[in-house]
Amino acid sequence: MEKIDLRRLAKELNLSISTVSKAMRDSWEIKAATKQRVREVAEKLNYQPNPYASSMRKQKSQTIAVVIPEIANNFFSVVLDGIQVIAEKKGYHVLTYLTHESLANELSTMKHLQSGRVDGVMVSLCSETSSNEHLIRLKETGMPIVFFDRITEIPDCPTVTTDDYESAYKATEHLIQKGCKTIAYLSVSEYTSINHKRQQGYFDALEKNNIKRNKHLVIQCGNDNSKDSVIIKRLLSRKKRPDGIFASVEKSAISTYNVCNEMKIKIPRNLKVICFSNLRTASLLNPSLSTITQPAFEIGKEACELLFRKIEKKSNVYMSEHLVVKSSLIVRGSTGK
Amino acid sequence: MEKIDLRRLAKELNLSISTVSKAMRDSWEIKAATKQRVREVAEKLNYQPNPYASSMRKQKSQTIAVVIPEIANNFFSVVLDGIQVIAEKKGYHVLTYLTHESLANELSTMKHLQSGRVDGVMVSLCSETSSNEHLIRLKETGMPIVFFDRITEIPDCPTVTTDDYESAYKATEHLIQKGCKTIAYLSVSEYTSINHKRQQGYFDALEKNNIKRNKHLVIQCGNDNSKDSVIIKRLLSRKKRPDGIFASVEKSAISTYNVCNEMKIKIPRNLKVICFSNLRTASLLNPSLSTITQPAFEIGKEACELLFRKIEKKSNVYMSEHLVVKSSLIVRGSTGK
Repeated sequence: MEKIDLRRLAKELNLSISTVSKAMRDSWEIKAATKQRVREVAEKLNYQPNPYASSMRKQKSQTIAVVIPEIANNFFSVVLDGIQVIAEKKGYHVLTYLTHESLANELSTMKHLQSGRVDGVMVSLCSETSSNEHLIRLKETGMPIVFFDRITEIPDCPTVTTDDYESAYKATEHLIQKGCKTIAYLSVSEYTSINHKRQQGYFDALEKNNIKRNKHLVIQCGNDNSKDSVIIKRLLSRKKRPDGIFASVEKSAISTYNVCNEMKIKIPRNLKVICFSNLRTASLLNPSLSTITQPAFEIGKEACELLFRKIEKKSNVYMSEHLVVKSSLIVRGSTGK
Repeated sequence: MEKIDLRRLAKELNLSISTVSKAMRDSWEIKAATKQRVREVAEKLNYQPNPYASSMRKQKSQTIAVVIPEIANNFFSVVLDGIQVIAEKKGYHVLTYLTHESLANELSTMKHLQSGRVDGVMVSLCSETSSNEHLIRLKETGMPIVFFDRITEIPDCPTVTTDDYESAYKATEHLIQKGCKTIAYLSVSEYTSINHKRQQGYFDALEKNNIKRNKHLVIQCGNDNSKDSVIIKRLLSRKKRPDGIFASVEKSAISTYNVCNEMKIKIPRNLKVICFSNLRTASLLNPSLSTITQPAFEIGKEACELLFRKIEKKSNVYMSEHLVVKSSLIVRGSTGK
């Protein structure tokens, strides 16, 4: 099938290209009868306007970008699902960029996005991001930006997070109530906003319950599953072995399960485990996993709705909205239900 | 920060817009020294060319599309990860479209993609797709298309799949060897290519082992988890209850686990379960789940590489490549290891 462009359509209609173009854009300069005829022939020939020509004209790309650290992750894939629902309603296209937790990738993506390929950007920062200059630079081109989950604070950039501090506090207190006295915290990168808040929640819950904080129980887990396993194995081989683990991300908890299987450490008898997680199979694990379940789908929807509000607002309107969507603590076997 | 366009850059350089534009495109008409100066000032001012103007000029969008039924699914999210790796290497952007298993969404996405927004398309069909006219129409506009996983056969459109028939055959035979005599097959939509092949593998393994095929043991599972649970509960409440289940997709196996927990049916003692799955927690489930693990990452990479070969080929070169990447049968507790 031949590709139908404006020129071909005009020829078919025996009209000028400019008349056809105006008719397609519903211009007042063109008679209703002509518009009707143009639309009918366009439909018949299956004419599709060039989206890039249309973008240049309207200065709108009808496209938004989502920048996330990884996709093969239950949290981010469900967030993306929420984003898609809203974008589709608005007739927008979604570009997905993965930083693979690398700052270099995040920098080059942000630089590229300055070009106007998209009308707005949603970002969850990578674990190496310790400064936000590249994000400020993007924002200063007039690009609407919404941060979610792993955020940074930039004026006029809305954020969507869960109640990281409160949830971490509750999770730690739950372990204490179940009898844990030596609770390790498996952190993610110290740069991330989520780690900062979750760690603080952990510290404050210990303090409130008269347990001294011990920096040797804060364990930095990276993104490499096999390295994490080595680190966790070392932790669980200590003379004074922890009796509780609070993992700030799902994959550290999965690594903990694997290490315990290998070392024949019984969960929850010898070790209680809880983590932030969106694992669909949490209740089916052996033992079932106690989780702080994040409202990932809602976070995606809310972030996308905020972005559209920002896109549709005049550029002189300032938005300082910071949404917090609550997580739920779900007690299961791994903390000795 | 002010947004720097070509006009502003030209003013800064005291050159004509056309000269600057040609210099940026490395035209032979411009002296090397001028090009050097233009590039330096462009870098200093952080100038980013308008990608849509550039797309119109080059007739290339540097963008590819992936159309998949869903994203909050381990298989598709890992496939997407594989696709991203290749696209990033090529400097391409990836648009993700979700059909949510609806043919209406798939039709409108394919129609939209005729417009030239992307240089190529990778598709895994939704469960409602029983005809491929809309895909042929897209292909006939000259759009390079690669199908993966849930494919259809269209001349000159490469495909990437796993060995669905052989894997299903092996999974069924494994259940028979473990003593199962009444094996149910939980299917996905009858329209999908994967279901056709997996079901045939199941039938042939039964026949080869002198077990009569019984259409009442082929159970259509949809995409609604709660409906699936009702269907599976009904199956497991039959007088002659199956002693083995072969689930063609992961979520039916998860529903089966949940139903068994509720009905106090012991896996593997009363029922053996195996399924196609990319669940990272398969080995941690209670009991650990026997799987046919698909090479999802490789499928994504191979599909994307094929797409680039198709994009870079002259349009008169015909490609009829059909790649099959093998899955592995991993025996675990749910089939009585």
